[in-house]
Amino acid sequence: MAFCLRIALCFVAIAIAIPAESQQTLTTVPQQQLDVIKVLLAQEEAWNRGDLEAFAQTYKDSPDTLLISGSVSRGYASLVDAYRKNYPNREAMGTLSFSELEAHPLDERFAVVVGHFNVERSKKEGGNAQGIFSLVLEKTAKGWKIIVDHTTS
Amino acid sequence: MAFCLRIALCFVAIAIAIPAESQQTLTTVPQQQLDVIKVLLAQEEAWNRGDLEAFAQTYKDSPDTLLISGSVSRGYASLVDAYRKNYPNREAMGTLSFSELEAHPLDERFAVVVGHFNVERSKKEGGNAQGIFSLVLEKTAKGWKIIVDHTTS
Repeated sequence: MAFCLRIALCFVAIAIAIPAESQQTLTTVPQQQLDVIKVLLAQEEAWNRGDLEAFAQTYKDSPDTLLISGSVSRGYASLVDAYRKNYPNREAMGTLSFSELEAHPLDERFAVVVGHFNVERSKKEGGNAQGIFSLVLEKTAKGWKIIVDHTTS
Repeated sequence: MAFCLRIALCFVAIAIAIPAESQQTLTTVPQQQLDVIKVLLAQEEAWNRGDLEAFAQTYKDSPDTLLISGSVSRGYASLVDAYRKNYPNREAMGTLSFSELEAHPLDERFAVVVGHFNVERSKKEGGNAQGIFSLVLEKTAKGWKIIVDHTTS
């Protein structure tokens, strides 16, 4: 918990856009924080192109993976089933955006990410939704994967 | 996430009560899981004797400690202030009980605990409340401490 990175999703783009000769002090963002934030960017991107398979792959394919949202769903297979059932088509998914993302590295293998989500969706499909989430991610052989997702809407 | 311990709070007492010569297969609970569950037992006990100071000490005294409940509260000092403000006396605290506690060790230094809470309280003080929580705990020099608390009621 030594570092806390609080960023809007545009932060990376802004940081890159600042010229090297700028008088401003630039903060170096640790690679681990960028890597875990990238998982969230990949999630958002996958969702917004209606690709639930790619979205699900941001979670660890393990029977221990937890999705907490009103109740506790246990295991990757249940998680994928729940998403397929609740979001059967592109319209049901709406448009997802994350904000106020914070990456909190625990050690080399684990990190916590906290953030807010917003879904814009037609009233017919359930309307807009927003809330807060906390995730625990693990650095696996397949990259950083979400192992605990607690979402409150 | 190799082990998952799903227990009611009475589990430890029940396990101790089973005679050694029992024919039942007993599961050995790893020490780490017992240690993190003990933090929750200490929390429950402190709350129910109206001892907010002891309750707060189950959290890590750090500016990085996060309490997520509707919004994100940052730092131990804010957390203590929030508890003092929201629970000014014994009646406002009611009676707290945890159930379905699960300890998920991440590695030697970090663990996740998921569980349900129930508060019985007079209508005058806001009535009963129940919900679900996920915690990240760190093994510090002062023992296991909560560093992230996400509570949904």
